[in-house]
Amino acid sequence: MNGATALVKTLLGAGVRTCFANPGTSEMHFVAALDAHPNLRCVLCLFEGGATGAADAYARMTGEPGVTLLHLGPGLGNGWANLHNARKAGAPVLNIVGEHARAHLRWDAPLKGDLDGVARSASDWVRVCESPEEVAQDGAAAVRAALSRGGQVATLVLPADCAWGEASGPAEPGEVPAAPIPARDRIEAAAARLSRPGAALYAGGPALWGEGAEIAGAIAARTGCRFITPFFSPRVREGEGAVASEPLKYDHAGSAELLREVSELIVVGERHPVNFFAYPDRPSTPEPPDCLVTELCPLGWDALATLRVLADAVGVTGDEEIARRGLSLPRAPSGPLEPEGLADALVRTLPEGAIYVNEGITAGFAIPARAQVARAHERLDLMGGAIGQGLPSAVGAAVACPDRPVLAVVGDGSAMYTIQSLWTMAREQLDVTVVILANRGYRILHGEMAALGVENPGRNARRMFDVEDPALDFCALAAGHGLPAERVETAEALETALARAYAAPGPHLIEAVLP
Amino acid sequence: MNGATALVKTLLGAGVRTCFANPGTSEMHFVAALDAHPNLRCVLCLFEGGATGAADAYARMTGEPGVTLLHLGPGLGNGWANLHNARKAGAPVLNIVGEHARAHLRWDAPLKGDLDGVARSASDWVRVCESPEEVAQDGAAAVRAALSRGGQVATLVLPADCAWGEASGPAEPGEVPAAPIPARDRIEAAAARLSRPGAALYAGGPALWGEGAEIAGAIAARTGCRFITPFFSPRVREGEGAVASEPLKYDHAGSAELLREVSELIVVGERHPVNFFAYPDRPSTPEPPDCLVTELCPLGWDALATLRVLADAVGVTGDEEIARRGLSLPRAPSGPLEPEGLADALVRTLPEGAIYVNEGITAGFAIPARAQVARAHERLDLMGGAIGQGLPSAVGAAVACPDRPVLAVVGDGSAMYTIQSLWTMAREQLDVTVVILANRGYRILHGEMAALGVENPGRNARRMFDVEDPALDFCALAAGHGLPAERVETAEALETALARAYAAPGPHLIEAVLP
Repeated sequence: MNGATALVKTLLGAGVRTCFANPGTSEMHFVAALDAHPNLRCVLCLFEGGATGAADAYARMTGEPGVTLLHLGPGLGNGWANLHNARKAGAPVLNIVGEHARAHLRWDAPLKGDLDGVARSASDWVRVCESPEEVAQDGAAAVRAALSRGGQVATLVLPADCAWGEASGPAEPGEVPAAPIPARDRIEAAAARLSRPGAALYAGGPALWGEGAEIAGAIAARTGCRFITPFFSPRVREGEGAVASEPLKYDHAGSAELLREVSELIVVGERHPVNFFAYPDRPSTPEPPDCLVTELCPLGWDALATLRVLADAVGVTGDEEIARRGLSLPRAPSGPLEPEGLADALVRTLPEGAIYVNEGITAGFAIPARAQVARAHERLDLMGGAIGQGLPSAVGAAVACPDRPVLAVVGDGSAMYTIQSLWTMAREQLDVTVVILANRGYRILHGEMAALGVENPGRNARRMFDVEDPALDFCALAAGHGLPAERVETAEALETALARAYAAPGPHLIEAVLP
Repeated sequence: MNGATALVKTLLGAGVRTCFANPGTSEMHFVAALDAHPNLRCVLCLFEGGATGAADAYARMTGEPGVTLLHLGPGLGNGWANLHNARKAGAPVLNIVGEHARAHLRWDAPLKGDLDGVARSASDWVRVCESPEEVAQDGAAAVRAALSRGGQVATLVLPADCAWGEASGPAEPGEVPAAPIPARDRIEAAAARLSRPGAALYAGGPALWGEGAEIAGAIAARTGCRFITPFFSPRVREGEGAVASEPLKYDHAGSAELLREVSELIVVGERHPVNFFAYPDRPSTPEPPDCLVTELCPLGWDALATLRVLADAVGVTGDEEIARRGLSLPRAPSGPLEPEGLADALVRTLPEGAIYVNEGITAGFAIPARAQVARAHERLDLMGGAIGQGLPSAVGAAVACPDRPVLAVVGDGSAMYTIQSLWTMAREQLDVTVVILANRGYRILHGEMAALGVENPGRNARRMFDVEDPALDFCALAAGHGLPAERVETAEALETALARAYAAPGPHLIEAVLP
C-alpha cells in the first residue's frame, strides 16, 4: 500500500470516522485512499474556514479529534482563524495538509509557499512527513498530539510523494500522554482558600458540563465559595438542571462589578480573566486590585482530575445541595425584535437537548444569560473571538450529534465570513436552525467608536461599520446555498418560524431583521 | 496628534489613496483617523481575503501599493491565500494589521495569537511598531518596502497603544531603493545566446505589457529568438495590437511540446518554468533535458531595466517589425456552453480596453488563448494558484481603473471561496461583469484523479469533487449580495447577457451553466 492508504488506515485504527475536507491536486492520492475507505466519512466544505470551524465543534462535542483535509499553505491560511478559535477552546483538531512532492519544492511552483511558517503559527504541534514509510507513524503521532494536553491543534504536512510512495502498513494509535495535575499540596492550599470569605472558584473547560460541572457545583456548595465561569466557554451546559454559575460579562465594567467583592480567585481549567480588548487608562483584567488570583490548573493540564482532588480536599461528600438552574420560560414576546424579545423568542422555543451555537455578538449578547432558564441545552461559544465560526461550528456540532437539534445564532457581519457553510448544511441535510441577527453591520464597532469619544462617525467609519447600501438578503443567500429560509421582523413571527424550523428535518435559515 | 493620525497622514503623503478594509476593535483609533481623512477612500470587504485580493489587483493595475486594514492574527490569516497570490505576482501590497495594546499582550485575551508568525509566513517584510512616536516612520518604511524589489508584501503590525499614543507628526515617504540589475557582461552573454538557433526569451512581469512588451517583442524580432511567456501572468496585454508571445500551457505535456525545440532559454522577470504540480515519474519542469536555462534577471530584480540593456546588447534599433496579435473575432457560437463556444462568446463581446480577470480553471482554460485575437485588453491571472482570487481581483481592478470595464471569469468552485466580494461590487457600484462557469464542482480534480488511474471515483471522491446535491444557485447568491444576475445555458444567451451587462453601469453576474 502507499503512504496515503497507510495513513487512512492508521486514522481509522485510531477511531477517526469523519474528515472535514477541502482537497486539491496535491492531496489526490490521499483522496484516492479515502475513496477506498468509505467508512471514513468525508464532509466537503467549500471554504477551509468551514472545515476547521466544523472540526473544532465536532471535537468539542465528541472529545475525538476533529480532522480536516486542506490544500497547501493557502488552504491552511484560509483555515487559520477557526484554528485560532479551536486552540482557545482546547479542542483536539488534526489537520492533514497536502504539500508538493519534496523534489518539486526546489522549484518556485505557483502554490509553493511558507507552509511550514503558517502551520507553526496556527498549530500547537506540526510535523512534516519525511518518507512514505514514516507517514503512518506520523499520523498516529498527530492523533496523539491532538488529544494531548486536553486537546490541541496538530498539523501533519503530507508531501505528495510521501502519499504516493510505498509504505508497509498502518501504525498503532499508541497511548495519549496524560496531562499534568498540580501537586496535591498546591491543591490543598487552594482548597483552604476557597473557604474564606470573598473566595470564588473560577473554572472552565470540563467544569462547564457533565461530571466536571457537578464537581465544581459541589465544591461551591461545600465551601460556600462562588462559582464563576468565563464569558465564553468551549462547551457549557445551561438551562433546566444545569449547575448554576456566574458568568463574566463581555465588558470590563460588567465583569469588574461581578468580581467586586472577590478577594480570592482560584482558577481551574481557564485563563486568568482578561478583557477582550485593552483601552487607554483601563486595566487589562477585571478583578479588584487586591484580589489574589491563583492559577491552580492552567490550560493544557488535567482540569477534571484537579477538580476531583480539590473536591476531596474541601471535603465533598456527594450529599451537597448543588445550586441549579430552574426552568422559567419567559412570556411570549411581541413587537419589533429588540434584544430582550429576540432572546425570549429563542429561549421559549429552544428544544430540550439542543446545541446552541452562540455567535450573536452585539445583538445576541443578551441571549445566553436569558437562556439560563430555558430547557436543558449546551452552548458553544466563540472562544478566540475570530468571527466566522458560528456557521462552521453548527456544521461540526450537527455532524457530531445527528440526533440533537442545533441552533446557530449568528450576527450578519459574522455570518458573511464563512457563509459557504450553509451549503454543507444543505448537502449533509444537517438538522440546523440558523438565525441571522440582521442589524445591518458591525454594530459592536459603533459602540467601540463611541467609547473613543467619536459620537458622529463620518463617511469612512460609517462605510466600514454599516453593511447596508445594499442590505444583504440572507433569504436569497440561503436559497443560493440550497436552504429554505424566511425573514421575520417581530418576536411573534420569530417564534413561529423557529417552531416550524425545529419541527422539520434538515437545515433552515431565519433572517431576523432587527429594528 | 496620535500615532494613528500620524500614520494616516504619512500614507496620504506617500500617495496612498485607497484602503481595502475589514477592521475590528483593535483598529478603532486608526479607523477614527481615517474617518477624519476622507480623501483616503476606505472600501469595506466583508471578508479579509476580499481585501487582500483586491489590494493585489489594485497594485497590479496602478503600480501603487494596494493597502489593506486587517484585524489581528485571524484577519491576516483570512487574507493569507490572496497575499500568497500577491507575492507570486510581485504586487506591492501593504497590510496594516491591528494588534492588542502591548501591555494587554501579557494576558491570554481571546484574540491574542501568533500574529508575528502568521505575518512572517504571509509577507516579505514585517515590522511591529514599538512606540507611537515611531509609527509614522514605520509606515513610511512599510510603503517603501512594499514598492521595493519590483513589489512585495509588507505588513505593519500596529499595537493599539501605538495608535492611540501621542506622536509628533507624519513622516516623509523617502526613496524606494532601486532593484538590482544583472551585470552588463552577463546580459551581453545572454544577448549572444539569444541569436543562436533554438533560443527563446522567456520573460514575464513588465515584459507582458507596455514598454516592456515592446522591448521584448523588438528583441525577438531583432534576434529571431522565440518570445515565450508564462501560463499565468500578473498583468498581460492581449488582443489586437498586443506584442505576440507564446504562452506555456497548464499541463506538463503541452508546455514540454511548446519547448521541445528550445535549446537556450533566457529567463527575465520570471521564475524558471515549472509545472503546477509534481506527479510520480514525471519531471518538475517542462524544458528538454539538454536545454540550457539562464536565469538572467530573477524576480525582485529590475526586469524592465534588464530588458532595456538586453535590447541594446542585441542591437535593437527601434525599426523592428514586432510580431503582434491581430483582431479576428470568431463567428457567433451557438448551442450548449462547450468550452469553445463559451470562449467565443466571451471573446466576441470583450470590450476594447477591458480588464479580464481570469480564474476560469478547467472550463476557462480555453479562453485566454482564444482571446489573443479579441479586442485589446489586459488579463490578470491567478499567480499563486490559490483559488478565491477572481472576485476580489475584479474589485481591486475596478477600483483602480473606474473607467475601464472589468470582466471576471470565475469557476464556481473558486467563486465560493470569496463570494462576499460580490457585495463590495454592489456597494461601490463597480463596473464588473462576473461570469460564473458553473460546472458544478472542482472539475479539475476529476482530471487529476483520472491521471492517477482512478477511473470510477467512489462516493468519498465524488462527494469531494462535485458541488451538487444541492447545486449552488448563483443568481440567488448574487441577489443576496445586491447584484442583478441572470442564468444562461447557451452560447447565444451568454453573448446577449454579456452585451447587456457591459452596456449597463454597475456590477452584473451571469451564471453560465455548462453541460
